[in-house]
Amino acid sequence: MSLELAERIYEQLSQIRLIDPHTHINALKPASETLSDILGYHYYTELAHSAGAQREVIEQPDLDPKEKVAVLFANTHNLDNTVQFSWFVEMARELFDFQEPTVDANNWESLYDRALELMQGENWTQTVMDKSKLDAVFLTNDFDDPLAGFDTNVFVPCLRTDDLVFHLNKESVQERLNNAVTVEISNAASLRKALSQLFDKFCSQGARACAISLPPDFAPMKISDRRADSAIAAVLSDGADVAENHKRAAANFVFWTLAEFCHEYELPFDLMIGVNRNVYPGGVHQGRDLFDSRVSLIQYRELFNAFPSVKFPVSVLASVTNQELVSYAWIFPNVYTHGHWWYSNIPTYVQQDATARLEALPRNKQIGYYSDMYKLEFALPKFNMYKQILSRILAERFVIDRRWSEEQAIALGKQNLRGNVEAIFLGNNPEEGFLLVD
Amino acid sequence: MSLELAERIYEQLSQIRLIDPHTHINALKPASETLSDILGYHYYTELAHSAGAQREVIEQPDLDPKEKVAVLFANTHNLDNTVQFSWFVEMARELFDFQEPTVDANNWESLYDRALELMQGENWTQTVMDKSKLDAVFLTNDFDDPLAGFDTNVFVPCLRTDDLVFHLNKESVQERLNNAVTVEISNAASLRKALSQLFDKFCSQGARACAISLPPDFAPMKISDRRADSAIAAVLSDGADVAENHKRAAANFVFWTLAEFCHEYELPFDLMIGVNRNVYPGGVHQGRDLFDSRVSLIQYRELFNAFPSVKFPVSVLASVTNQELVSYAWIFPNVYTHGHWWYSNIPTYVQQDATARLEALPRNKQIGYYSDMYKLEFALPKFNMYKQILSRILAERFVIDRRWSEEQAIALGKQNLRGNVEAIFLGNNPEEGFLLVD
Amino acid sequence: MSLELAERIYEQLSQIRLIDPHTHINALKPASETLSDILGYHYYTELAHSAGAQREVIEQPDLDPKEKVAVLFANTHNLDNTVQFSWFVEMARELFDFQEPTVDANNWESLYDRALELMQGENWTQTVMDKSKLDAVFLTNDFDDPLAGFDTNVFVPCLRTDDLVFHLNKESVQERLNNAVTVEISNAASLRKALSQLFDKFCSQGARACAISLPPDFAPMKISDRRADSAIAAVLSDGADVAENHKRAAANFVFWTLAEFCHEYELPFDLMIGVNRNVYPGGVHQGRDLFDSRVSLIQYRELFNAFPSVKFPVSVLASVTNQELVSYAWIFPNVYTHGHWWYSNIPTYVQQDATARLEALPRNKQIGYYSDMYKLEFALPKFNMYKQILSRILAERFVIDRRWSEEQAIALGKQNLRGNVEAIFLGNNPEEGFLLVD
Repeated sequence: MSLELAERIYEQLSQIRLIDPHTHINALKPASETLSDILGYHYYTELAHSAGAQREVIEQPDLDPKEKVAVLFANTHNLDNTVQFSWFVEMARELFDFQEPTVDANNWESLYDRALELMQGENWTQTVMDKSKLDAVFLTNDFDDPLAGFDTNVFVPCLRTDDLVFHLNKESVQERLNNAVTVEISNAASLRKALSQLFDKFCSQGARACAISLPPDFAPMKISDRRADSAIAAVLSDGADVAENHKRAAANFVFWTLAEFCHEYELPFDLMIGVNRNVYPGGVHQGRDLFDSRVSLIQYRELFNAFPSVKFPVSVLASVTNQELVSYAWIFPNVYTHGHWWYSNIPTYVQQDATARLEALPRNKQIGYYSDMYKLEFALPKFNMYKQILSRILAERFVIDRRWSEEQAIALGKQNLRGNVEAIFLGNNPEEGFLLVD
Repeated sequence: MSLELAERIYEQLSQIRLIDPHTHINALKPASETLSDILGYHYYTELAHSAGAQREVIEQPDLDPKEKVAVLFANTHNLDNTVQFSWFVEMARELFDFQEPTVDANNWESLYDRALELMQGENWTQTVMDKSKLDAVFLTNDFDDPLAGFDTNVFVPCLRTDDLVFHLNKESVQERLNNAVTVEISNAASLRKALSQLFDKFCSQGARACAISLPPDFAPMKISDRRADSAIAAVLSDGADVAENHKRAAANFVFWTLAEFCHEYELPFDLMIGVNRNVYPGGVHQGRDLFDSRVSLIQYRELFNAFPSVKFPVSVLASVTNQELVSYAWIFPNVYTHGHWWYSNIPTYVQQDATARLEALPRNKQIGYYSDMYKLEFALPKFNMYKQILSRILAERFVIDRRWSEEQAIALGKQNLRGNVEAIFLGNNPEEGFLLVD
Repeated sequence: MSLELAERIYEQLSQIRLIDPHTHINALKPASETLSDILGYHYYTELAHSAGAQREVIEQPDLDPKEKVAVLFANTHNLDNTVQFSWFVEMARELFDFQEPTVDANNWESLYDRALELMQGENWTQTVMDKSKLDAVFLTNDFDDPLAGFDTNVFVPCLRTDDLVFHLNKESVQERLNNAVTVEISNAASLRKALSQLFDKFCSQGARACAISLPPDFAPMKISDRRADSAIAAVLSDGADVAENHKRAAANFVFWTLAEFCHEYELPFDLMIGVNRNVYPGGVHQGRDLFDSRVSLIQYRELFNAFPSVKFPVSVLASVTNQELVSYAWIFPNVYTHGHWWYSNIPTYVQQDATARLEALPRNKQIGYYSDMYKLEFALPKFNMYKQILSRILAERFVIDRRWSEEQAIALGKQNLRGNVEAIFLGNNPEEGFLLVD
């Protein structure tokens, strides 16, 4: 009974058009050009590497795309159980008309050729957007991204700020910043002015969010301008050798100033909390980061209190932090739960975490899902996975356990998937958000 | 099959009369006088605030109860998915004969009037007790509560000690303590004597537990009288300015002395571990506390070892601490699992946590549930939620997976809900505890 | 539907013969001699103690085995709900032909006598191995174990190293080490030589793993020989009074050197992370250890990077660490998930943790289960519990949700239960691992 019910709800949720509120899409090349763009996604290379493939083999330079896919398929036989691989199979079926039960070293080539043909056809990007029912995707733009050459209503700019907060001591970042603004940076005042220019530019180009990923030991605090002056001077002059206390003070100053501009420019500030970068330097590209689950949102207490009018959509990397996230979003009006990030984006944890949110949080305080994708093709299987889980929760916990009507359950699902994205990032009426898509 | 089985078990568990081992009931006004007493519960005000309602609107002074309910219903449309709101709807149905599928801004007024009529009727308290099958509820009494004017067999006193342990530096607490005892407090010896007078009074008035809520960073340790002397002197003289080390030493001295008296007076010592107070000062009344899930029961190692004959019913605020709680109760004879507290009292976490307890702990080491309620009407939906979850666990994990008879499963459920409360707090025979209720 | 499907998968998984990759079996006395050897297992004594039985009663000396079992059965009535007790009932049924629905104080004696008769029969060990479908079990050998008198293909040696790393300051350990090697230990060089002799001996006797259990605050790091020299000198001379910093440096030196030899001798290094020893000194034998769930695999970052060719099968004591374990095994080629340890070996946590592993990790990176048993009889019910859970996950998550064939699901289960043990510990071809058992 509950399986059929969940299936009916899933069918309804599959009707709605989506806005994906966090991706790494390159707006100038949103879709894949060969299957290598898909299978080269770090989820596959890092899992193949974990399962035994040498990094040197996977990442050998000068490999043409088809050879690269051949190499990867020689190393995916140990991944066929993973949900990550199931996304690939679903893409093959739904986007490339692949009919065989699975894809492996024996049959990938026909898939490759068929995909290539489709990708080289006209309007492949639009075809993927249509098949995936995507209206728009949020980008992750470097602060010096020109933001030119694409429709910002479809590819929505988002100011990513990790470099500004954590890597201002790097010469390359300083140079990029100098090129992006008209002010010479030397102290708190000039850095603040530079940041305001970035916000000016991004907001004038339709940016809808500021975003950052944060290590588990980061605990934002307000820094005086005077302390910031010396910290910034040290960061600018000492580069890689900058003292840890100065680096941290400068990071805190920049972070806090970003929050101030989010307030001023009315931009939501996406916090992605918990990642330790480069834990495994021997890993494949983008397959080197991990985490420490000993993190608490109490570290953000001062921030959440200081900026009541800034919306903070918060992602946590560890599922064990989800209950804190639910509780902080339950108490703080400016804290929202945001999707299921990275290592928590597998069904076991998505189900546990999403259920707690749907049970305990106001329906307008939760943004159901984002794909985090690098290429457009991934939205379809990732959102489908979430919709399957969401449908089952709605069926079992709401329709069966709490005797809701199917219509009520579907309305909650639509708000979770789309309405709240509109309300929180685009400022549309939260009550009517999900009606727009009917 | 399993749904029907769970339903049959639920019916049986619904027959038993309950003792609620932890509430905040005011014994002189146990039931609500208007619907405002129910909807004014912090769960609703804080969720409405979280969903966007201004605190100034929710908490405007001089609002009459009906106006207050009107204001709240103008702000509950975003809460209808929450389990907390489902408790309200269940109260409306079961206690106030409300027949419509949900309660909202359009139909609350007839409910308000009907509830008022019932609450003003004779014996409303007794009616609620009867409908909820409540035999008794434990109170949470301030140390200077007169404990007069009610039947302590029905409203069972419990000495709450947060103020004594953590706020002895406040002048108001010192004054209240001076008024409550006959001894002048100046050092360890006189403070110990004062505490003994409180235990004398509470125990002579039928108190059945001592209780305290504890922040995540608290780690009890024994303090010498000499160290305590200086700490107490500082706490008494320096008030709000007292040095942190003195405040902490005094807290440890008081806490440890309470445990000594729990031993001497044979009172269980309820520990509610993990709360950070006033994390969000801008929140509504009682909607300001949160937690840090980085807490471990290893912090209580010395305490559990030092007091083998004191029973410690332990509640944890974070579900991620539940496995530690299960393991400590599995090893320490004096540690008991106690209910599902606050942010962990939502179905996802209750189910996960209760299942682990039922699978791994002796059946006499676990106290299934308490309501934590401020008004009597809440016992019914909260206990029903727990009974639904418990019934499903008994059906799936015991009757189906382990081939228990329904009778065995029901007996386990009864012991969990009632028998162990009697055994642990009232000293009744644990084996016969649940037989008393047939 | 899913129950029947899971049942069919379970039947298939029950056909395979097992290798148990972690036990505490005494190879010279692998099976029980009386029921007291089974019921004397710490799981029962500690739970009986937790439920109220006095340690002095449970552990009274000079009790003959039957009297001891009588004493224990007088104290097991509170344990009948636990999964641990269900293992006992299953042993009674499957190994001792016991037909009654449960075992308790009224009917244990006939079980005792029947078990005694069977245990005294010829080939009881082989009978248990056959009924349990065990091909081999890994041992946990002290570094000075003679490793003589048994078939090391069936009872596979494993070098347990807790004493060397954490207790080298104890005179008894120093003596045992001096007797086990031919070198006089005084500094880093001589200790390294001594360890190499132990590896020589163990590997020549067929050892297949090095193993250690680790406290939550341990964070391995490389120590220079010079620092190690002074630390070892202090540990050897100061015994119980050795300074903490020296003790820790010596522990780090020994641990790191063990990893170096695991590399050199190609031995997997089993890490069992998270235990705090002797938290409850008043507990029964082996019922005194607990944990602190505030541990992170980030503590092992340096180790995992330094030894890319050493296989690290990792067990974590706290289920809340499982997501980190999954993520580290997902990224690091040399990290494997290993079974469900101790306080995490109850169905709730096994199901949650195993599901995440099966969904997110390459199929060859996970070792499904080990029994951790002290007597052979325990393998049967413990593995059956795991197989039940595994079958259900395969049925629901793979066959139903992802439309796998039953054959595919069963193949994954076989690899998880057996194939990967062969591949990781015995060096058999991982792809063919599970084929060997057909």
